[in-house]
Amino acid sequence: MAYNLLKGKKGLIFGALNEDSIAWKVAQRAVEEGAEIVLTNTPVSIRMGTIDRLAEACNAIVVPADATSVSDLENLIDKTMEHFGGKFDFILHSIGMSLNVRKGRTYDDLDYDYLAKTLDISAISFHKVIQVARKKDALNDWASIVALSYIAAQRTLYGYNDMADAKALLESIARSFGYIYGREKHVRINTVSQSPTPTTAGKGVLGMSDLMDFADRTSPLGNATADDCAGYVLTLFSDLTRKVTMQNLFHDGGFSSMGMSRRAMKLYEKGLEVEYRDISKRE
Amino acid sequence: MAYNLLKGKKGLIFGALNEDSIAWKVAQRAVEEGAEIVLTNTPVSIRMGTIDRLAEACNAIVVPADATSVSDLENLIDKTMEHFGGKFDFILHSIGMSLNVRKGRTYDDLDYDYLAKTLDISAISFHKVIQVARKKDALNDWASIVALSYIAAQRTLYGYNDMADAKALLESIARSFGYIYGREKHVRINTVSQSPTPTTAGKGVLGMSDLMDFADRTSPLGNATADDCAGYVLTLFSDLTRKVTMQNLFHDGGFSSMGMSRRAMKLYEKGLEVEYRDISKRE
Amino acid sequence: MAYNLLKGKKGLIFGALNEDSIAWKVAQRAVEEGAEIVLTNTPVSIRMGTIDRLAEACNAIVVPADATSVSDLENLIDKTMEHFGGKFDFILHSIGMSLNVRKGRTYDDLDYDYLAKTLDISAISFHKVIQVARKKDALNDWASIVALSYIAAQRTLYGYNDMADAKALLESIARSFGYIYGREKHVRINTVSQSPTPTTAGKGVLGMSDLMDFADRTSPLGNATADDCAGYVLTLFSDLTRKVTMQNLFHDGGFSSMGMSRRAMKLYEKGLEVEYRDISKRE
Amino acid sequence: MAYNLLKGKKGLIFGALNEDSIAWKVAQRAVEEGAEIVLTNTPVSIRMGTIDRLAEACNAIVVPADATSVSDLENLIDKTMEHFGGKFDFILHSIGMSLNVRKGRTYDDLDYDYLAKTLDISAISFHKVIQVARKKDALNDWASIVALSYIAAQRTLYGYNDMADAKALLESIARSFGYIYGREKHVRINTVSQSPTPTTAGKGVLGMSDLMDFADRTSPLGNATADDCAGYVLTLFSDLTRKVTMQNLFHDGGFSSMGMSRRAMKLYEKGLEVEYRDISKRE
Repeated sequence: MAYNLLKGKKGLIFGALNEDSIAWKVAQRAVEEGAEIVLTNTPVSIRMGTIDRLAEACNAIVVPADATSVSDLENLIDKTMEHFGGKFDFILHSIGMSLNVRKGRTYDDLDYDYLAKTLDISAISFHKVIQVARKKDALNDWASIVALSYIAAQRTLYGYNDMADAKALLESIARSFGYIYGREKHVRINTVSQSPTPTTAGKGVLGMSDLMDFADRTSPLGNATADDCAGYVLTLFSDLTRKVTMQNLFHDGGFSSMGMSRRAMKLYEKGLEVEYRDISKRE
Repeated sequence: MAYNLLKGKKGLIFGALNEDSIAWKVAQRAVEEGAEIVLTNTPVSIRMGTIDRLAEACNAIVVPADATSVSDLENLIDKTMEHFGGKFDFILHSIGMSLNVRKGRTYDDLDYDYLAKTLDISAISFHKVIQVARKKDALNDWASIVALSYIAAQRTLYGYNDMADAKALLESIARSFGYIYGREKHVRINTVSQSPTPTTAGKGVLGMSDLMDFADRTSPLGNATADDCAGYVLTLFSDLTRKVTMQNLFHDGGFSSMGMSRRAMKLYEKGLEVEYRDISKRE
Repeated sequence: MAYNLLKGKKGLIFGALNEDSIAWKVAQRAVEEGAEIVLTNTPVSIRMGTIDRLAEACNAIVVPADATSVSDLENLIDKTMEHFGGKFDFILHSIGMSLNVRKGRTYDDLDYDYLAKTLDISAISFHKVIQVARKKDALNDWASIVALSYIAAQRTLYGYNDMADAKALLESIARSFGYIYGREKHVRINTVSQSPTPTTAGKGVLGMSDLMDFADRTSPLGNATADDCAGYVLTLFSDLTRKVTMQNLFHDGGFSSMGMSRRAMKLYEKGLEVEYRDISKRE
Repeated sequence: MAYNLLKGKKGLIFGALNEDSIAWKVAQRAVEEGAEIVLTNTPVSIRMGTIDRLAEACNAIVVPADATSVSDLENLIDKTMEHFGGKFDFILHSIGMSLNVRKGRTYDDLDYDYLAKTLDISAISFHKVIQVARKKDALNDWASIVALSYIAAQRTLYGYNDMADAKALLESIARSFGYIYGREKHVRINTVSQSPTPTTAGKGVLGMSDLMDFADRTSPLGNATADDCAGYVLTLFSDLTRKVTMQNLFHDGGFSSMGMSRRAMKLYEKGLEVEYRDISKRE
């Protein structure tokens, strides 16, 4: 169902790899809601994924850019403004990657060059995008910028590794720049802290499927899907949320406010029974 | 501008006293967005205010109810379901009052009967509304319940008195019941922590106008108005935020994430100059 | 091991029922650290428990008082000051009880008289203690007041029921009164959010032992015990923490900052295996 | 007054530049409480400051080390263990510096090489210290690691610039590594979020003295001093806080839990009067 919620709005979307991507869903839904969009991703992600299909469906152009490269971002913003014939209204940042995770370096054995890359790709890129956009005065007053985050920024989850620190940094950048850009141009900047989601990136995290099960049974509404997330992000791009800024917004079926649900505990108790049985056998 | 965001939805709105009320604006905007509504307030507020004008404009009925009275609430929910011909989709709770504040009892000299009333009116009433609605199975699956809160629940503001404690309790009730009602019927429950707002209730708080000035200069986007708040609440009633629950959502122009803005500090520094001048005169 | 950390200090301790009680341990340790103490509890708890043994060991008097009764508290503070020959330095509030929990009323079927009692006993009593102490000018400058809380104030745990709301209210009172009493007399007020603890009160909560197992496996340092808690509370009564106020301090082995530990997940996964086996059998 | 709180304990202290430094006070107080210590700082800080005087007073050695250099840290940990004749019990990390701040680059015009340095010096160095210590198995079971932080990690303060992001990253590292090191060796890791303090580093931040005034008038107990901070850090190194980990602990006279104090508002109102007078003159 469409509402024309973004009628007349124009936006730039980072990170749509394939149809599992949250950014992909946001792009689709934004267009359904009346927006025009420009898509971007790294050259390698463009080759590996299927963004061209999305671009076609959305009547959008794709501008390759490495979000850690200021010159790439300058080119991207120029091309985007050229395409739109002027300023635009929203940006989605959906970018994250840890070489430490990929290469199996645990958190007590981090490679510091990899860590620097994790932070640059997953968090500092957000600052770069905003700084470049602001220097080029690319955004309309009351524009909206959203980045995707995860609760690991607040609470440690085994296996999430240095991505947790990257998300904490990302959320801090949203606050710090939200102040600056808000007082000047009324541009708002928020992060959405999404349920664990079976995207290509999400699947890469160790033991993610069991964690998703736990999150799902803990959350009273169950995990939020990529589709759900797209709907929520639309509201943040719309004019109805103009005074929300510098926030980290949990979109997670209630997980962040749960200590323990009956449903997850029932499963845990089954594990306990097995454990006690095994222990008594050993004795 | 309207989007038909609440087309086909039906809701119950507490607390529209007069056209300054946030609940008033929510009612108006909800109807513009395609919702049908029922209005309610205490008999005394109905007499003192102008809710009948709102009801007429919104094609709504007004059902008097004291939200601290379970039997009043039972009657209210019955009448509401009767009017709608069945279940409904959203509830707004915008109720708060402190006799300690009204009677000038400071926080170190609370009257405990007044405190019990503050909590009953401003927080426990929220539980009562939800418990009665649930027992009568009055809400559709995926319904949305919102209560209005204030940052005093997290941070002490002089003069806000026992209302701070009431808001903390209110937000806790949203979490506690959000779990129960969410797992059962996917009903989501959130609070919106709104900027200080010049409503009839807001104006009653001691030194409120100076505090509003401080909040406004601290918030990068300025204080959120009652109109802004109505827009935001609509998104929470819509289907686009179905997986957001048990949250306290700051709608405050960024105030909650600010330590100190340049703009507020400039004014503070003017005060400092006067202070130092006065001190040096005295010496 | 003792440090004379509370040498010359005098304090009042609520809630030592028996030797499992956290308040009991705090009393013992405070005396070991050089403090003089007065003990108090309700008449019924005094009869049911073994506080007289503690009093003897601690060379303390026991003054019965119902902490919800202002006149009882006035008498208690008078007797305490009389005993000490003047003002004193610290107060421990370790009181909580829910009739809804005891009578098996679930959170969606609360009895509102019981709820009022839960809040009065578990939270408002804290305000009453402080207000009475302040009116009688019973505390020395830089005195320290601590109440025991639980993470249910922030995150919902099934079965914890209206005690969650009581703890949220309790923590808010610590902030609200911390401001008032701090600016006036430098009295600091904090809450300690303790791991689930197998006290007489703790054991009463439904499914508590399984929850304790989960908390223990989730917390990197394991659950904090009553003994651990006593040690921590001593630091808060000492002169070394004079500038800490209006805080809720987690003393929980790290639980509050955990999303999921490997150790808890291993057990959960055992439960998942059983679950999937059972499902495949059924099909 | 000393309690022998750290009797028999050994620790390593980073960042004592001169007698204004918090690390300096911690070193002094730790020794008074019975600890043996090793001091470290960068070679340039050692030359610019007066750490040798502290070392003499504390009967400590000074080992120069750049905390961003893993090989320097390896040497430091080796020398420290050699000096102590084995493992040790606590570490204080009091390190922070932003070239963007120093060079006057505002947050919307960051130099990204400087940002990388800010993060490396002020946050990643904390990870490096811990990782090196863990790999060398340098810490006793139940050791305690503390880093100094600031509320800018949660709330934006104009002028604090990219140090805010560095502090957010620092606090995240404390959580992430607190999990790993806690489950393995019961080592606890926390950050102390201290009031703005007139250290050499603190004085470097733009408009810091006015901000300190605001913080002082807002905090019911006033700003915490470097001396206060030292006392508090001692409790975190002691055996009395063994189950506190992965926490960010506000040591700030209550500032973090304040929205607005009467005392700060009075000054603000003086500024408002001047402002309105100036405006009416202009009209």
